[in-house]
Amino acid sequence: MSTIADVASRAGVSKATASRALSGRGYVAETTRARVASAASELAYVAHSSATSLATGRTHTVGLVMPPVNRWFFAELLAGVQESLLALDYDLALYGVPEGSATRERLFESVLPGRRFDGIIAVGIQPSAHELERLQRTERPLVILGPYGEGTSAVSIDDVAAARIATEHLIELGHTNIAFIGGPTGEAPESFGDERRLCGYQDALAAAGISAKARVVAAAPTMPGGYAAAAGLLGDRRHRPTAIIGVCDEAAIGAIIAARRLGIAVPTELSVVGIDDHEHAEMFALTTIGQSPREQGHEAVRLLTKQMEQPDPILEHLAAESALVVRNTTTAPR
Amino acid sequence: MSTIADVASRAGVSKATASRALSGRGYVAETTRARVASAASELAYVAHSSATSLATGRTHTVGLVMPPVNRWFFAELLAGVQESLLALDYDLALYGVPEGSATRERLFESVLPGRRFDGIIAVGIQPSAHELERLQRTERPLVILGPYGEGTSAVSIDDVAAARIATEHLIELGHTNIAFIGGPTGEAPESFGDERRLCGYQDALAAAGISAKARVVAAAPTMPGGYAAAAGLLGDRRHRPTAIIGVCDEAAIGAIIAARRLGIAVPTELSVVGIDDHEHAEMFALTTIGQSPREQGHEAVRLLTKQMEQPDPILEHLAAESALVVRNTTTAPR
Repeated sequence: MSTIADVASRAGVSKATASRALSGRGYVAETTRARVASAASELAYVAHSSATSLATGRTHTVGLVMPPVNRWFFAELLAGVQESLLALDYDLALYGVPEGSATRERLFESVLPGRRFDGIIAVGIQPSAHELERLQRTERPLVILGPYGEGTSAVSIDDVAAARIATEHLIELGHTNIAFIGGPTGEAPESFGDERRLCGYQDALAAAGISAKARVVAAAPTMPGGYAAAAGLLGDRRHRPTAIIGVCDEAAIGAIIAARRLGIAVPTELSVVGIDDHEHAEMFALTTIGQSPREQGHEAVRLLTKQMEQPDPILEHLAAESALVVRNTTTAPR
Repeated sequence: MSTIADVASRAGVSKATASRALSGRGYVAETTRARVASAASELAYVAHSSATSLATGRTHTVGLVMPPVNRWFFAELLAGVQESLLALDYDLALYGVPEGSATRERLFESVLPGRRFDGIIAVGIQPSAHELERLQRTERPLVILGPYGEGTSAVSIDDVAAARIATEHLIELGHTNIAFIGGPTGEAPESFGDERRLCGYQDALAAAGISAKARVVAAAPTMPGGYAAAAGLLGDRRHRPTAIIGVCDEAAIGAIIAARRLGIAVPTELSVVGIDDHEHAEMFALTTIGQSPREQGHEAVRLLTKQMEQPDPILEHLAAESALVVRNTTTAPR
C-alpha cells in the first residue's frame, strides 16, 4: 500500500504539503493540490484516518441523529447539514432512527456515547427527554434542530407564531369556521413542533374570541393523513368548515385533493392554508407559511463549528425565518 | 475521563467482558450487558473508537454515496441501509451529493479514497463512469444499488422489464395511443434506471407493432414534472393519448392531478400507470409496478457483509422483486 511519502515524492513536494493538499486543511496552491491529487490517484493512496485521528484527537466527523428521512422537511434539513459539512471536509455519521423505538434507546444508551465525534446535531429531541441529557453528558458540542433550547444551542422557526399567523390570515379574510388538520393521532410519538403549531392555532382563535368554534382533527402529518382527515370532515355537508389549516403543507395538500374529489371548489367553497412551503406547494398554488429547512441545516453546522472552536461557547437559540406566502387557496368565505 | 477499566470495575466484570458488552460484538449475557451499560452510563464512559480501529484494522463504518434524499425512492433505500447497519452495529457515513457536481468530483478524487471504511454502498453510479473505477481501485468491498453490474455486486429491479410490463398491461387493455412521461430533459444528469424504463416502453410498443405511435414527453421524475408534462400533452384535445405511463409514480401522480384539473376522468377517459408503488400510490388508486427499495437497502448490506467476510467474494447481481399492482387508474379505452 502506498504511503504519504510515496505520494509526496511522486508529486515533488514535502510530506507536510502532500498531507495538507489531501486533507483540504490548510493552504496549498491550486496547481500543487492538483499535482498531489493526481499522484495520490495514480498510486491509489489511502490515508490512515484512524491514525490521523489518534494524533490530533479530532475525528472530523459530525454525528447526525434524526427520524427517518421520509418527509420533505427532514430530507431538506439533511441536505443542508450535508452541504455544509462537505464544504468543511467533515464526514457525516447518520443515525436515522424512529423516535420511541428500541433501536433509538440503544443508540442513546450505548452507541452514541461510544463514538468519537467532534460534535452532534440532533433533530427533534424532546426537551425534557433523557435523550438530550444523555447527549449533554458526553460533553461534546451539540446543536438541536428543532424548537428545543434548554441548555443547548438550537435552530428552528417559531412554530407557535407560524400557525398563529396562518390562522390569523384566515380570520382576517372573514372565516370563523376553521378546522385544524393534524392533531395528535395517539399512534406515533408526536413531533414537539406539531404540538406547538396546534397551540398557535388555538391562540389565534382565542385572541379572536372564537375558541368555541375550534375543531381539531387527528391526522398524520402526511398527504394521505390530510386526505383521510379532510374526506371525513368535508363529507358531512351540514357541519363543513369554510377553511382548513394543515399542520404542514403535506396535510394541507391532502385536504385540497380530498376537496377536489368531493367536488368542493378551492378556494371559493373552501380555503386551505399550510405551513412549510413544501416543494409541491407551488404546484397546488397553496397559501402557506414559508421556511427553509435547508438553510436551517446550514445554520446548525455554523453554530456547531463555533462551539468546536470556542472552549466555552455561548449557547444560542437561532430563530429561523418564516413568512406568509399568499397564493390561490385562500379567499373570503361566501 | 473514565476508562474501560473504570467501567469494568464498577460493573464487577473483566475488561474484556465490559468491552464486548459495550461494543455489541461477541456474546454477553443480557443481565451483564445491562449492568455494564448502566456503569458506563453513570461514568459517562466514551470508548476510543479510533484506538479500537487502529488495533483491529476495522472501522465498523460503511460509506454510502447517493444523490440527495429528496425522492421517496432514495429515502427508502437509505432507510433500508440504515436499519441493516444499525442492527449490525455499523456506522453509516453518508455522502449525499448531486451527480455531476464539483463536490461530487472532489468526493471521488480525494475524499473517499482518504477514508477508511469497511465497505462502500453506492447508489446510481453510471456503469462506465470514472467514479466506479475510482471506487474499485480502493479495493474495498463495494455494492452498487442500481442496475449496474459490471465487475461489482449490485442490487436492483430489472427496470427494462418493469416498464415493459406496465406498457403491456395498457396494450392488453386495448390502448394503442400510449404516451411515456419522463423522457430526458437535458437538464439534470439522467438516471440510468430511468433511461432503461424508456427502453422497456419502446420494447413493448415494438413487440406490438405500434412503434410509430410512440410519444415520449420530457419530464423531471417528480410530481410537478409529471403535472407540467401531462398538462401540455392533454391540453390538445385532438392529439390526446388514451393512456399515459409515468417513468415513476411521482410523474404518474402528477399526470392524474393534471387530468383532474382539466376535467378528464381517470380511468374512463385516460388510463395512467406508474412504476415503483410509491407511498402515495394507494391514495391515488394508482396501477403500478411495485418494488421495495427499503428491502433492496437491506439486501445491499447483506451482500456487502458477505464480501467483508470472504477474502475473494463472488460478485452477485441480485434482481429485486417487482410485480404489477392493478388498482383503479387503468381500464379499456372507450
